[in-house]
Amino acid sequence: MNIEQIVRNIESHLELVIPKHPFAEVYRYGVLPPGKAFRPQLVAALYADFSNDREDLSFLDNPKNSINYLASAVELHHAYTLLHDDLPSMDNDDERRGKASTHIKFNEWKALLAGDGLQTASFALLSKFEGEALPVMLKFFSWALGPKGLIQGQYLDLSEEMTKGIDELILTHQYKTARLIQTSILLGFWANENKLSRSESYRISKELFRLGHCVGIVFQLLDDLTELVDEVLTEHELAVNPWLTENSNKCLLEIISDLEKIDSIIEKEQLIQTKRVLSNYFQKIENLLTEGEGNITKHSKVDLVPIISLLNRINR
Amino acid sequence: MNIEQIVRNIESHLELVIPKHPFAEVYRYGVLPPGKAFRPQLVAALYADFSNDREDLSFLDNPKNSINYLASAVELHHAYTLLHDDLPSMDNDDERRGKASTHIKFNEWKALLAGDGLQTASFALLSKFEGEALPVMLKFFSWALGPKGLIQGQYLDLSEEMTKGIDELILTHQYKTARLIQTSILLGFWANENKLSRSESYRISKELFRLGHCVGIVFQLLDDLTELVDEVLTEHELAVNPWLTENSNKCLLEIISDLEKIDSIIEKEQLIQTKRVLSNYFQKIENLLTEGEGNITKHSKVDLVPIISLLNRINR
Repeated sequence: MNIEQIVRNIESHLELVIPKHPFAEVYRYGVLPPGKAFRPQLVAALYADFSNDREDLSFLDNPKNSINYLASAVELHHAYTLLHDDLPSMDNDDERRGKASTHIKFNEWKALLAGDGLQTASFALLSKFEGEALPVMLKFFSWALGPKGLIQGQYLDLSEEMTKGIDELILTHQYKTARLIQTSILLGFWANENKLSRSESYRISKELFRLGHCVGIVFQLLDDLTELVDEVLTEHELAVNPWLTENSNKCLLEIISDLEKIDSIIEKEQLIQTKRVLSNYFQKIENLLTEGEGNITKHSKVDLVPIISLLNRINR
Repeated sequence: MNIEQIVRNIESHLELVIPKHPFAEVYRYGVLPPGKAFRPQLVAALYADFSNDREDLSFLDNPKNSINYLASAVELHHAYTLLHDDLPSMDNDDERRGKASTHIKFNEWKALLAGDGLQTASFALLSKFEGEALPVMLKFFSWALGPKGLIQGQYLDLSEEMTKGIDELILTHQYKTARLIQTSILLGFWANENKLSRSESYRISKELFRLGHCVGIVFQLLDDLTELVDEVLTEHELAVNPWLTENSNKCLLEIISDLEKIDSIIEKEQLIQTKRVLSNYFQKIENLLTEGEGNITKHSKVDLVPIISLLNRINR
C-alpha cells in the first residue's frame, strides 16, 4: 500500500465518521479533504511498526478497525483547532487549504459550534477503542491537547509571547504542534497492546515522546522556511518568520539537532513505516527547498546545505 | 452534610482542579462560583443513592475521591458551554450570573480558547476515574455532549428552530439541557461499580436516563416560567418565552407529566439523596412561583396550581 492509498483509506474512514448532526455540511467542509493527513498516517505507521508484521497495512481496509477510529480521532481534533484558529477573534484567516475558511463559507457561530462538536466527537472516536490501553490513551490525549498542552500553545501564539525569542518560539511549537503529533505517535504504539514488559513499553513510550517532539518542532520550522520560497514576501511573513530574525542561526541548530534525533530513533527502533511517512513528507520539503534555494537565501542568511543533507539521510 | 456544605465541598474541589495554565484567572472567572452546582450535586447524590450507605456523603471530603473528579468534570464541561454561549457570534450576552461575561471581562479570544481548554479539561478529569466503568462513561459523555447531543441543542437554539413549535422546544431542551443532566446522573450511578447483575444495571440506567430527561425539560420550562415574575418583561422575554405563546398549555401538560415521572422514579428506586437535591431546587422554584403568582398569571394564562401541588408532592 503506497502513501496515496493510505491517505485515500484515511479519507474514506473520515467520510464514515464525520458527524452527520446537526449540520453535516459544515463538518464535512471543515474536515475534508484532510490536507496531508499527516497525523492519521502517523497513527497507522506506528501501529504497524509495533505489530507482528510491519509490512502489513491491510488493517486500514477494515473500516471497523480500532486504528482507523484512532486515526480519525486525531484528525477531527486537528480540524477543530483549525476551525477555531481561523475565527475573527483568533487568527482571523479568510482562507484555509486554498478555500474559504469555514466561518466565511458558513458563518461564525456555525464554525465555532462545529469546532466544539468536532472536539467532542474526537473523544467519541477515541472511546471506540476497545482495548486495555483506553484509559492511558484518554489520559494522554486530554493532557496533551488540553490547557497544559495544545491550548497553551495557542495562548503563546495569540498573546504574541511566541515572537519574544527562540525559547518562546520552540515552546509554542512544542505545545501547539508537537503535542498532537506525539499523541498520534503514542496512540498508534499503545494500540498494539503488545506483550512488551512494562519497563520496555515505558522506555519505548519515552523514546516516541521524544520523536514526536522533534517531528513537531521540525515540522513547524521547515514550514516557516518553505514560506520563504516566494520572491516577494507578505508583510505578515516579514514580521513573524523566525528565519528572518537574529534567531535564524538558532533555528538552524535546532532543526539539525532534531533531524539527527529523528534519524537516530527511527534507526534504533527500526520504525520502517514511520520512516516511510516522514520520508514522504521530507522529500516534498527537500524538493521545495532545492527549487527555492535562490529566493530563500536571498531572504535569509541560513545555510540550507546541512538541512538538505540531513533530510537526504532520513530519505535514503 | 447539608446542601450548603455539599456545594462548598464541590467548590473546593473545583478550586483544586481548575486549569492553572496558561491563563488561570480566565478559567477561574468562568467557572467560579459555580452557581447552584446542580449538576455536580447530582453526580454525588446518585453515587450515594447506589452505594452501601445512602446517608454517607463523607466521600466528598476526600479531594482524591473519583466522585469529586466526575462532579468537577461535568461542571467544567458546563462552564465551557456558557463561555462559548455568551460570545458575540453566539448569544452575545454581556452578563452571566450577575457579572460581566468572560469575553467582556477579558477578551473574545481568551474566552473562546479558555472554553476550548475547559472542554478538554473535562475529559482529563473524567480520565481520573480509575474503575472499570470508564469506557462506558467516556462513550456516554462524548455522545451525550457531542454533535448528536448538546451541540445539536445549541444548533436548534441558534438557528431559531427551537421557537417553531412545542416539539422543537422540547427537543432543544432535551439536547441542550437534559443530556448534561443525564450524564451527571449516570456517571454518579456507574461510579459505584456495584455488584448488580448486567440486566439490573441496564434497567436502572434506562430509568435514570428517563429521570434525567424529565429533570432537564422541567429545569428549562420552570426557568422560563420564573422569568415571568417581573412586573415588566424585556422585549427579548416577550419574544421567546414559550409560556406567552399558544403553546403555554402544552408546556403545562409537559411539565406535569415530567414532574409525575420524576416523583415516581424517585420513589420506586428510593433515591433519597437525589430527592434531597431536587427538593432543594424545587423548593426555591416553589417560593418564586408563590411570591410571583400575581405577575405570572398577569403575563400568561397558565394555571400554577397543579405545578405547585406537584412540586410540593416531591418536596414533602
